[in-house]
Amino acid sequence: MRRSIATVSLSGTLEEKLRAAAAAGFDGVEIFENDLVAAPVPPREVRAMAAELGLGIDLYQPFRDFEGVDDAQLERNLRRARAKFELMLDLGTDTMLVCSNASPVALGDDARAAEQLHRLAEAAAPYGVRVAYEALAWGRHVDTYEHSWRIAAQADHPSLGVCLDSFHILSKGGDPAGIREIPGEKIFFLQLADAPYLAMDLLQWSRHYRCFPGQGGFDLTEFTRHVLGAGYTGPLSLEVFNDVFRASDPHRTAADALRSLSVLEDALGREGAAERASEDLGDSHARPRVTLTRLPDPPEGAGYAFVEVAAQEEDAESVRAVLAALGFAHTGDHRSKPVQLWNRGNARVLLSSTDPRLGHTWGGAAAITALGVEVADPDRAAQRAGLLLAPTLPRRRDPAESRLNAVAAPDGTAVFFCPGGHDGREWLNDFAAETARHRHEGTDTPLTSIDHVGLFQPFDHFDEASLFYRSVLGLTPDASLEVAAPDGLVRSRALASDDGGLRIALNVSVLGRGTQADAAGGAQHIAFACDDIFAVAEAMRADGLAPLAIPDNYYDDLAARTDLAPAVRERMRENGILYDRADTGEFFHFYTPMLDDRLFFEVVQRTGGYTGYGAANAAVRMAAHRAERDR
Amino acid sequence: MRRSIATVSLSGTLEEKLRAAAAAGFDGVEIFENDLVAAPVPPREVRAMAAELGLGIDLYQPFRDFEGVDDAQLERNLRRARAKFELMLDLGTDTMLVCSNASPVALGDDARAAEQLHRLAEAAAPYGVRVAYEALAWGRHVDTYEHSWRIAAQADHPSLGVCLDSFHILSKGGDPAGIREIPGEKIFFLQLADAPYLAMDLLQWSRHYRCFPGQGGFDLTEFTRHVLGAGYTGPLSLEVFNDVFRASDPHRTAADALRSLSVLEDALGREGAAERASEDLGDSHARPRVTLTRLPDPPEGAGYAFVEVAAQEEDAESVRAVLAALGFAHTGDHRSKPVQLWNRGNARVLLSSTDPRLGHTWGGAAAITALGVEVADPDRAAQRAGLLLAPTLPRRRDPAESRLNAVAAPDGTAVFFCPGGHDGREWLNDFAAETARHRHEGTDTPLTSIDHVGLFQPFDHFDEASLFYRSVLGLTPDASLEVAAPDGLVRSRALASDDGGLRIALNVSVLGRGTQADAAGGAQHIAFACDDIFAVAEAMRADGLAPLAIPDNYYDDLAARTDLAPAVRERMRENGILYDRADTGEFFHFYTPMLDDRLFFEVVQRTGGYTGYGAANAAVRMAAHRAERDR
Repeated sequence: MRRSIATVSLSGTLEEKLRAAAAAGFDGVEIFENDLVAAPVPPREVRAMAAELGLGIDLYQPFRDFEGVDDAQLERNLRRARAKFELMLDLGTDTMLVCSNASPVALGDDARAAEQLHRLAEAAAPYGVRVAYEALAWGRHVDTYEHSWRIAAQADHPSLGVCLDSFHILSKGGDPAGIREIPGEKIFFLQLADAPYLAMDLLQWSRHYRCFPGQGGFDLTEFTRHVLGAGYTGPLSLEVFNDVFRASDPHRTAADALRSLSVLEDALGREGAAERASEDLGDSHARPRVTLTRLPDPPEGAGYAFVEVAAQEEDAESVRAVLAALGFAHTGDHRSKPVQLWNRGNARVLLSSTDPRLGHTWGGAAAITALGVEVADPDRAAQRAGLLLAPTLPRRRDPAESRLNAVAAPDGTAVFFCPGGHDGREWLNDFAAETARHRHEGTDTPLTSIDHVGLFQPFDHFDEASLFYRSVLGLTPDASLEVAAPDGLVRSRALASDDGGLRIALNVSVLGRGTQADAAGGAQHIAFACDDIFAVAEAMRADGLAPLAIPDNYYDDLAARTDLAPAVRERMRENGILYDRADTGEFFHFYTPMLDDRLFFEVVQRTGGYTGYGAANAAVRMAAHRAERDR
Repeated sequence: MRRSIATVSLSGTLEEKLRAAAAAGFDGVEIFENDLVAAPVPPREVRAMAAELGLGIDLYQPFRDFEGVDDAQLERNLRRARAKFELMLDLGTDTMLVCSNASPVALGDDARAAEQLHRLAEAAAPYGVRVAYEALAWGRHVDTYEHSWRIAAQADHPSLGVCLDSFHILSKGGDPAGIREIPGEKIFFLQLADAPYLAMDLLQWSRHYRCFPGQGGFDLTEFTRHVLGAGYTGPLSLEVFNDVFRASDPHRTAADALRSLSVLEDALGREGAAERASEDLGDSHARPRVTLTRLPDPPEGAGYAFVEVAAQEEDAESVRAVLAALGFAHTGDHRSKPVQLWNRGNARVLLSSTDPRLGHTWGGAAAITALGVEVADPDRAAQRAGLLLAPTLPRRRDPAESRLNAVAAPDGTAVFFCPGGHDGREWLNDFAAETARHRHEGTDTPLTSIDHVGLFQPFDHFDEASLFYRSVLGLTPDASLEVAAPDGLVRSRALASDDGGLRIALNVSVLGRGTQADAAGGAQHIAFACDDIFAVAEAMRADGLAPLAIPDNYYDDLAARTDLAPAVRERMRENGILYDRADTGEFFHFYTPMLDDRLFFEVVQRTGGYTGYGAANAAVRMAAHRAERDR
């Protein structure tokens, strides 16, 4: 399908917006009048510029509050509309968006509105312009698509149809199934936007918090399926008002936007297959008349092959000491690169010397630079990632030499696709087994695997990262939550594969503060799973490494609010172990001190079906790391 | 009255919060349990630390969802409560806050809630603890103060009373007048928070957007008057959840907080005088039993004496060229400092060489460093500012030498209090009249005065700045509005004196981005008023200075949406003049190019009673300055 994006979704000047949309691969743009009025380029030149970039101008949105006005105002509105039709000739676009009147003085008279829109369409026809009437969620009288279509049908003019906007429909809990009742050729335009579920005034929600499909909480696959089911064949166009996108690199945003449409089309194609099957049963109206781009299937059975930590030599020594205390053994050295293999149970950490070519963003401090993800079909996973515009990384970044495919996540972390299963781990052959002399034997601890990785994200790319991991790795995101760190709020969102084999927690400063990202809230971490957290903690302490100190006040409160046995609480206190409980099970976890202000480790034990991350304790952890730093 | 602040209102560790509250001059604090649980200091030491700082601990807020539960849960809750009473003995605080149950499983049975709160109070009594029951605005069953008081009255225990929180009452449109029906001695605590009017879920609004009294839209003077009228004599305590305050310097926030209470007490004292008069008519219940701190009256008849611009030599030349083109003459030089006096009509600009001792934040670029404000009684104004914790500036910052008093605004701008009226301008005598040889004669333009000044604010101090100008200069704030600059949203809030003699527009980046503050939205400007904007613009062009170029697209749109005569529009286009209209009048304005990436000038002409700032054109201005920079 044709893919389009509204200029309001991107930051910069009109020219910058056009360049970014073209570079990402969009077919067209919608232009919001404000962007044109403020541009030092006349409409004809905008058209030429877009054409040169291979972009069509699919829609122009010049004004609001057209219909449901008194007769004198209608004449003024028609005069203004004619000026805009002239402009649209220059701009080379044939579809004008007219939103339902949101003015407090709008008249609530459907017959009047229909007649006035008929006059507008009549005026538009000689210019070859089509008018797409859209119900704003906060329209004064017309605020549902059913109502806008009723008026458009009543107006009955070939140059008048409707525009459907997913936000305006889904934000009010509208049922998109009724869209199938609208003749497809009368749906002149489709605007798509997702949004997180927020209990908020619709206007504020719409103007500040929209996001791309798949980044929020709406079911845009179902929504769009109904629109295609109605017979719509026009562009899928993204109209997303978002405070962060308005202020971010438009090229990144445009790529993120196009990725969201690829995921949507793929999902529609998969559902379409089912629909075509139902068509055989006679439901021919449901058949999409458009070609939907498909992606290879998402990875299956994903888990961690390894996590790579890069560190300069002095920091690497601290990382080694912590790994050893946790029971990791240094079992191999890469045959040609300064990379060590450390493992315990099924948990593998690659420790590499900081390589300036890595271009990571942590200024040389110890940092997680790569995730090795085991998947059933690495080539397919890489192909899918490429189609989702994930930047492919050069082979030299491969910490092994097994020609693993890798892509860069939005925060710069490399994601390697590794063959899964014991037999498939050829990349381990790149590491020469350590001789007994060099081999560092860790203490004997019941660590089993990597439970999750926590990655602090750049403020501008949090939604992008969430969609990236969701779409590239086939993970399912949890709801966002907020943690009060001593230096401000941190937003956190976890994603996991269906069986929990791959879990990633993304964190971001709510205010996007540089200073805060430097504080305890802004670090990265690896969490290891185990069967007996007390054994791990005590072995670590016996090795001379104290866990992150948790205040006695925490355990006093635990005594007041839980029925944990006093002896268990005391053992938790000695080992800095925190506790959480859900209906499904319990969660015990402790942390290491912060290494180099940026990196720490966690050990977790899940019982029952606990699937969380101990979010209730996150603020305590952040304050404790902060206290450790202040000491 | 005793003044208190909740630890959640300030950023940092518990110790940092206590130090900041003490340094600002608070008498006490409320401690939120999370702050204590995460602190590495036992309750006894917290008590000692607070005592040493001269702070009482006025309230502890340990948990929620106490009442309206089943019997088994009640026993668990009472067990937890007893542990907290023990803790409160160590902490040395005698008031516990209990919020109404907000859990979806809470039982809606007043008799049960009353009985359970009675048991809690009974358990509290031996510890000398009082329980203050507060209705959360989103309480499951109890969400108004009337309801919480009804239950507390029914529970009927000397250790049980209510806590009133202005946010929970005013956010739902509650009528505070009914508070007078509650016996004063049963109001155990008063929490104050303001908030901007936002159509938003109450919980989100409350947790993120509260602000200090006078920074939002609530009438806290009336609210508090009712509480005092009921006979409440406890602390005025600020409980403000605010994303920005959570991440800002707690010392600045605490001073801002205390300032808000000073303004509130002063307003109450003024109203109290009227109330005491009504008391003579028999309304003895209304009499406040507390002592309210008073401030000197706010300045009257304020206007601009001068605006000071500091610039390094090469930039100073650009500023001089623009001033000259606008008709300013260089009429004097300071007798002992590198400061020039430029004036036209009643508009005066002091141009000083950048002095590193000024400590301004603009990295040496041309910038507005001081506002000279004419007031009827400068000494009184300075005294008021001092009581409002405005930092007094050393005399050496006085650009004249007339011993003008000055204070620093939150963004570092100096505010000088100057005697008003022609006779009072002694400070002008510090400037030796320029001899004809050096005197720069400007073109002859009908500029009359300084209309307003636009100051870009540091992100952390926008609300503080608004309260500062409001309280120190007696200005009235407009509503906030947002402008879509090419690089992101800018929030703008204007303040003006009643007669419009002093107008200030404060702007801030909505995302608080460093990069954005550097862009066109982040500049400062001085706007000059005139009687004939065409004459000023044409004189300026004749002097060789082109106005900021406004796109033709703007004028084409103006033709479509207004009835301005074509000849007028054409003259506006030639001179880059923008247009706005309100019910009360019209607004014509143009801008100069940006000087040194930071500073520009505006010329405005108001007709009728137009009191705005042409906000509808702000995005066009920002895009035009951005386009100018890109060229």
